[in-house]
Amino acid sequence: MEMEKILQKVKEASRVVATLKGGVKRKILREMADAIEKNRDYLMEENEKDLQYARQANLSPALVDRLLLNEKRIKGMADALRQIASLKDPVGRVIDGWTLDNGLRIEKVKIPIGVIGIIYESRPNVTSDAGGLCFMSGNAVILKGGKEAKNSNIAIIQVLQKVLEENGLPKEIISLIPDYSREGVKWLIQQDKYLDLIIPRGGEMLIRFVTENSKVPVVKHDKGVCHTYIHKDADLKKGVKIAINAKVQRPGVCNAMETLLVDVDVAEKFLKELKQYMEEEGVELRGCEITRQYIDTKPATEEDWETEYLDKILAVRVVHGVEEAIRHINRYGSGHSDAIVTENYSVASKFLNEVDSACVYLNASTRFTDGGEFGFGAEVGISTNRLHARGPMGIDDLTTYKYVILGNGQIRE
Amino acid sequence: MEMEKILQKVKEASRVVATLKGGVKRKILREMADAIEKNRDYLMEENEKDLQYARQANLSPALVDRLLLNEKRIKGMADALRQIASLKDPVGRVIDGWTLDNGLRIEKVKIPIGVIGIIYESRPNVTSDAGGLCFMSGNAVILKGGKEAKNSNIAIIQVLQKVLEENGLPKEIISLIPDYSREGVKWLIQQDKYLDLIIPRGGEMLIRFVTENSKVPVVKHDKGVCHTYIHKDADLKKGVKIAINAKVQRPGVCNAMETLLVDVDVAEKFLKELKQYMEEEGVELRGCEITRQYIDTKPATEEDWETEYLDKILAVRVVHGVEEAIRHINRYGSGHSDAIVTENYSVASKFLNEVDSACVYLNASTRFTDGGEFGFGAEVGISTNRLHARGPMGIDDLTTYKYVILGNGQIRE
Repeated sequence: MEMEKILQKVKEASRVVATLKGGVKRKILREMADAIEKNRDYLMEENEKDLQYARQANLSPALVDRLLLNEKRIKGMADALRQIASLKDPVGRVIDGWTLDNGLRIEKVKIPIGVIGIIYESRPNVTSDAGGLCFMSGNAVILKGGKEAKNSNIAIIQVLQKVLEENGLPKEIISLIPDYSREGVKWLIQQDKYLDLIIPRGGEMLIRFVTENSKVPVVKHDKGVCHTYIHKDADLKKGVKIAINAKVQRPGVCNAMETLLVDVDVAEKFLKELKQYMEEEGVELRGCEITRQYIDTKPATEEDWETEYLDKILAVRVVHGVEEAIRHINRYGSGHSDAIVTENYSVASKFLNEVDSACVYLNASTRFTDGGEFGFGAEVGISTNRLHARGPMGIDDLTTYKYVILGNGQIRE
Repeated sequence: MEMEKILQKVKEASRVVATLKGGVKRKILREMADAIEKNRDYLMEENEKDLQYARQANLSPALVDRLLLNEKRIKGMADALRQIASLKDPVGRVIDGWTLDNGLRIEKVKIPIGVIGIIYESRPNVTSDAGGLCFMSGNAVILKGGKEAKNSNIAIIQVLQKVLEENGLPKEIISLIPDYSREGVKWLIQQDKYLDLIIPRGGEMLIRFVTENSKVPVVKHDKGVCHTYIHKDADLKKGVKIAINAKVQRPGVCNAMETLLVDVDVAEKFLKELKQYMEEEGVELRGCEITRQYIDTKPATEEDWETEYLDKILAVRVVHGVEEAIRHINRYGSGHSDAIVTENYSVASKFLNEVDSACVYLNASTRFTDGGEFGFGAEVGISTNRLHARGPMGIDDLTTYKYVILGNGQIRE
C-alpha cells in the first residue's frame, strides 16, 4: 500500500515534469550537479556504510570497487548531469507533419513516455545519470537500485530531490523504491496503471525475470554475442586491426567481439597472423575443427558459439562464404552488433541487409556501439529490444509521440 | 508440438519475406487480389458453412452480417490488396543518418519487425487485409481469427498461400493458427522465441487477456472514450457542427465522441442548441447536475464518464475552464482522441500540450482518427499503446529499425 501511494505520487509528478520548458530543466540539472558536488562529504559518508557492509559480506574486490564513490567519481556524476543539461530537448520536436486535402494540419510530435522504472545493480552513478536523463526528457522515474548500494542511492536521491523541491516541483519526479525483495520487484513490474516503461539493466537472471513477469512494456539491455566476419576479399590488415580492437580494447563489455568468423580461402593466412597478436594480448582462442587444422587452439564446442565470455577468450570458426556467416550470426548471435570486413560491395550489402542485428558494421570495430560514440551525448544503455528502441539508446528514445491535429471546423463526411 | 513446428516455419519464412524487393511484393499482392476475385465462388461456398453455423448457433443478425462474404465484399478485399500494393515500401527507408568525426557513417534504416501475430474476431476481410499489410512491410504473419469465421479464413489463406507458392516463396509467410481454444491463444502469446509482436483486435476481454498473459510485445487496439470540449471562446456554430459529427456520423466506432465538456460561461446557450439537433438525431443525453439546470436530460453517473457507449448516447458535463476539462479527460479518457473547440490561442496550446492522448484536435471532429483519413493508404488499426505505435497505425508502423555503420578500418581508441 505504501508503495502504491508512492507510485500514485510519481504518476501525478509525471504530468508536471512533462510540461516543463527546456530552459527550466537545464537550470535545475545544473543546480543538481552543483548540489552533488557540494554534498560530496555526505555522499562519501553514506557510501562508506555500503562499502563496509560489502566488505563484511565478502563481496568481490571488483564489486566493492563498482560501489565506491570517491572524489573523482562524484565529480563525474556532476559532470554527467551538466552534459545532460546541454542536450537538445527532445520534447515537442515535430518528427513529421502534413496537410490533408480538407485543410486539416497533422503534426507528429515527440512527448515524454510518462513514468519510467529503471531496475539496476551496484554502480551508484546510475542513480544520478538515469535520474537526469529521464528528467531532461520530461519523464518521472522510479529507480530501483541494488540493496548493496542502498545508502549511497538514498543519499544521491535526497540531494536531487532537494533541488526539485527548491524549484517548487514535486520531489517524486525522481523517486527511489526502498523495497529490495524479489516480491517487491515483481509487484513493481506489474503496475501497468502507473508505469509506462521498465528498463532492466543487469545480469541475465534479472533481465529474464523482468521480461517474463512484467505487464509493463520492457526495453531490455541484454547480452551481446558479437561477431566479426573476415570475408575472403577483406583487406586483411584492416581485418587484424579490427578484430584485435573488437576483442581486447575492453573485453568485459557487451559490444566486444565473442566469435570470429573467417572465410576458408583466407583462413590460414589470417589466423596465423591473428594468433600471434592475440597471444601477445593474452587471449585464449577456441577453434572449430577447420580452424585447428591451421592453428593450434583449444577446441570450440556448440556452447562456445552462444557464449558471451566478457573475457579474453575468443571462439573462432572457419566458414565457406557470406551465406554461412550470416546463418551462423542469425542463429547464435544475440542481435547486438556484428561486423563484416570486406572490400566487396555486393557481399557487404548482403551482409548488412541480412544480418538481423541492432548494429551491423562494414570495416569497423563493433566497439562503436555506444551512445557516446554515436554522438547521443549521454546514453541510457544499449537496447537489445526489437521494438521501441534498438541499439544505443539516447535521450530521444525516452520519448514517444502524439498527433496534434489543427482544423477550422472540419467534420468527416 | 504441431503448433511449434508451424511457428518455426513462420520464423524461417520471415527471413525470406524480409529481403524481398518492393517490386516483387507489389506483383505478388496484385496476383493475390486477382486470385481472390477468381476464387469468389469457392470463398462464398466456404463462407456459407460459417453462416449456417452462425445461424444455427443463433448469433445476432449483426454478427452474422459481419461474417458475410458477398460479391461486393470479396471485390472489396481484392481492391484493398491492390491498394496495399500501391503503397510506398517502408523497408530500407533511411530515417536518420550522420557521419562521426572519425569518418564512420551511421544510417538508421527501417526494417521489418519479423513475425507478427494478429488475433481478431469475426470479419473475414481482416484475414486478407492484415496478411497484405504484413507482407508489404516485409513481415511474416500468424493470423488467429475467430472460430465463427473458421472456414472462410482457411479458404482465404489457401488462396493467398497458393500465390506465394506459385512465386517460389514459403507459404508460411502468411499463416493461420487452427487452434481456437483459450489455451491455444495463451500458448501462442508466450512464444517470444518465434513472435516479435502481437496485435489483438477485438473486445475488451480479449485485449485484457492478451495484455496480461503475453510475453511478446503487444500493440493493443483498445477502446476510445473520446471527448469534445467547447471552450468559452469557441465559435459555437463550429462547436455544434463538430459535436454532432463526432457523435452521430458513425456512433459505433472507437473515434466517436462519448463525452461532451462545455464551459459554464457558454453552457446554457450551447446546450440548448445542441439538444435540439441531438434529439433530431435520436441521441440520448446524460447530463451532470449543472447541465440539468440548463436542459432536461437523464442524470449522468460516475460510470458514464468512463463508458464507451458505441451508441447514440452522450454524456455531458459542464466545466469551469480548460484546467478542469484537461483534468477530466486525463482522468476518465482512454488516451485515444480528444478535441477542443476554441478561437483562443493560449488555451488551445495548453489543451493540445497537456491532454495525454494519441490524437489531440483543435476545431475538428475526433472522427478523423483513422489511417485512411490520415493518408496512410491502409491501416492496421488504431493503437492505444503508448509505445512503438500510437494512434492510427499505417504500414510504416509495422517496421522497426537497425543501424548500419560504414567504415574503412575504424577502431576504438
